[in-house]
Amino acid sequence: MTILLHDLCGAGDLRFSPYCARVKMALALKGVAYTTTPVAFREIAGIGDGSFRTVPVIRDGDRWIADSFAIACHLDDSYPGPQLFPGGGASRAAARWHEATLGAMVHIPAMPMVALSIHDGLQPGDRAYFRESREARLGRSLEAAAEDRATRIVEYRKTAFLPFRHVLSRFPYLGGDAPTFLDCMAYGSLHWLHAVSDLDWFGGDDVLQGWFDRCRAETAKGAPS
Amino acid sequence: MTILLHDLCGAGDLRFSPYCARVKMALALKGVAYTTTPVAFREIAGIGDGSFRTVPVIRDGDRWIADSFAIACHLDDSYPGPQLFPGGGASRAAARWHEATLGAMVHIPAMPMVALSIHDGLQPGDRAYFRESREARLGRSLEAAAEDRATRIVEYRKTAFLPFRHVLSRFPYLGGDAPTFLDCMAYGSLHWLHAVSDLDWFGGDDVLQGWFDRCRAETAKGAPS
Repeated sequence: MTILLHDLCGAGDLRFSPYCARVKMALALKGVAYTTTPVAFREIAGIGDGSFRTVPVIRDGDRWIADSFAIACHLDDSYPGPQLFPGGGASRAAARWHEATLGAMVHIPAMPMVALSIHDGLQPGDRAYFRESREARLGRSLEAAAEDRATRIVEYRKTAFLPFRHVLSRFPYLGGDAPTFLDCMAYGSLHWLHAVSDLDWFGGDDVLQGWFDRCRAETAKGAPS
Repeated sequence: MTILLHDLCGAGDLRFSPYCARVKMALALKGVAYTTTPVAFREIAGIGDGSFRTVPVIRDGDRWIADSFAIACHLDDSYPGPQLFPGGGASRAAARWHEATLGAMVHIPAMPMVALSIHDGLQPGDRAYFRESREARLGRSLEAAAEDRATRIVEYRKTAFLPFRHVLSRFPYLGGDAPTFLDCMAYGSLHWLHAVSDLDWFGGDDVLQGWFDRCRAETAKGAPS
């Protein structure tokens, strides 16, 4: 049975969601076959029984599962192959810390820099919703938030990627010698930055770039977009 | 053979170092007997062969080991008892991410709020060194940095402890069902905040307080200060 992934989609088939990218890398690492179906923001409420508010959502046989972390747990619980959470419960607890710190250190400070680019990359029918909800969060227009992004990225590179450098100077993957869901989560976040914006996120950092390229190659083994 | 821990010490036998506290909780979890010897900042260069620049430093038989993370690895490699890094290498890689994010989200934003209190809690002979080095880092006097701490702590509580809440709403410990070195690291950081300053760090957060109290109780089982 092939898993169906509902995958957030912008204009020109742009698949930019960090959380969907996490699931794609996880599916690839597990070696579980899947297909994707594109979903715009305004189409999320039409998935399945209509109870979903975010993607990713997967359909695995007769099971519907939302939330990238829950999907990863489901994959480890249901499929053989390399463990996304090696060691079980302790590893899942540790990964929750990564989930929160990626949000706080990578996503939140990036939002002002990328929100306008995300908006411009969306399907026209999604743009009004996105602008309204994100301008409320940012407390200013998307244009105003983006204004100093070219200078702000210098500081962003130093702070947002500090934990990456701290681990990757010692191990090939955030999960150690082999990629785990820690890598899926972090790769998804950095895929998002690269997919929506052509800013030079890594600024020539070879360690970061090398790890990112390895994660992208792992993801590509899983097939679809 | 009892381990000797060189433990940073302020006035009135105040043991405030976050990194020494990490080691004490780790020693307690492993059930390894130890004693401490107090060290002032200015005495660190006199430890052992004079090559050490920071504490903790432990002497375990004829081995001298510095750095809390390295000491924890040594304890797992050399002693039986509960694993500080359950699962080995993957777990050590994951813990390095926690180490970096604790530094970035807990220590760095707290420094302006606590540096003056740390200064005042040091032995008089350590104060000039501390003031000079920390004022250089902070770019202002310790007094100026501390000025708005009572208002700043409101935002600090929300952001610094966000990853704690994210994990501890799901698991009793950061390491899952039982404490691991992830808990030792985080406890050491929060012990530091409480030891040097009487600010209300948790603001009545019972989940955070409960976890902190459990970690303190685990540490107390190990004996010394």
